[in-house]
Amino acid sequence: MAVNDQCINFLLTTAQHSVFQYFSGCLEKYDITPAQYGVLSCLWDIEYSTPKQIAEELCLEMSTISGVLDRMQKKGLIERAANEKDRRGIRVIVTEKGKELKEPVTQIVEDVNKRVLGMFNVEDAEKFRQTLRAVAQEKY
Amino acid sequence: MAVNDQCINFLLTTAQHSVFQYFSGCLEKYDITPAQYGVLSCLWDIEYSTPKQIAEELCLEMSTISGVLDRMQKKGLIERAANEKDRRGIRVIVTEKGKELKEPVTQIVEDVNKRVLGMFNVEDAEKFRQTLRAVAQEKY
Repeated sequence: MAVNDQCINFLLTTAQHSVFQYFSGCLEKYDITPAQYGVLSCLWDIEYSTPKQIAEELCLEMSTISGVLDRMQKKGLIERAANEKDRRGIRVIVTEKGKELKEPVTQIVEDVNKRVLGMFNVEDAEKFRQTLRAVAQEKY
Repeated sequence: MAVNDQCINFLLTTAQHSVFQYFSGCLEKYDITPAQYGVLSCLWDIEYSTPKQIAEELCLEMSTISGVLDRMQKKGLIERAANEKDRRGIRVIVTEKGKELKEPVTQIVEDVNKRVLGMFNVEDAEKFRQTLRAVAQEKY
């Protein structure tokens, strides 16, 4: 076992890398990335959102989200529209093409969750989720 | 709570991002990154290693490790030497400058572990480590 197996950053990084690669592979069929799925999941059930709201929900920097939205717009998954009430504001709206991904991609997420967490019992899997949430939300 | 809070990849990514940012900030003082710490930790207690061995130990692709080693060599933390027994092979050796980081950086890793895992009891923290290892090592 590696020396740095004791380092919590190393453990989180290797676990994340492993699941990210697996999830990315599963999404390839629909030509979207995990981050693009994140954006879609913010938009599927609401009329519109702003880039700032999406960035906050996904814990991403604004500079990162801009690039993700650019690529999604090119693929025809989202549109950006001016906000009539606030001329500086931009609204992000999911297109029909983006909406059509909701059912198959939600199924992929469920399958990936089952595959990754299926090796633990229900109680341990829920505890793992809770611990990850707590680690993510802590202000270091 | 975000819709994609149910997605295990999202939970792992946000937890990893949060700890990675924190750990990176702590290492800034010594002008190294988490990946560079990983390489150093592979070399501190042994005479030499090969790029392939380091990549395997850190679960990184060879293309990634080459770039990390390039930057570390420029900083004078490691050296690359030809392997006399295998002319194609390269040995990676830690320099005195790299060795001197062992004590302070190991202390940072311990402090970061305590800060991140300190909000859980000892049993839960150990269970969390074990779960991350299992998730990382699974072949998806």
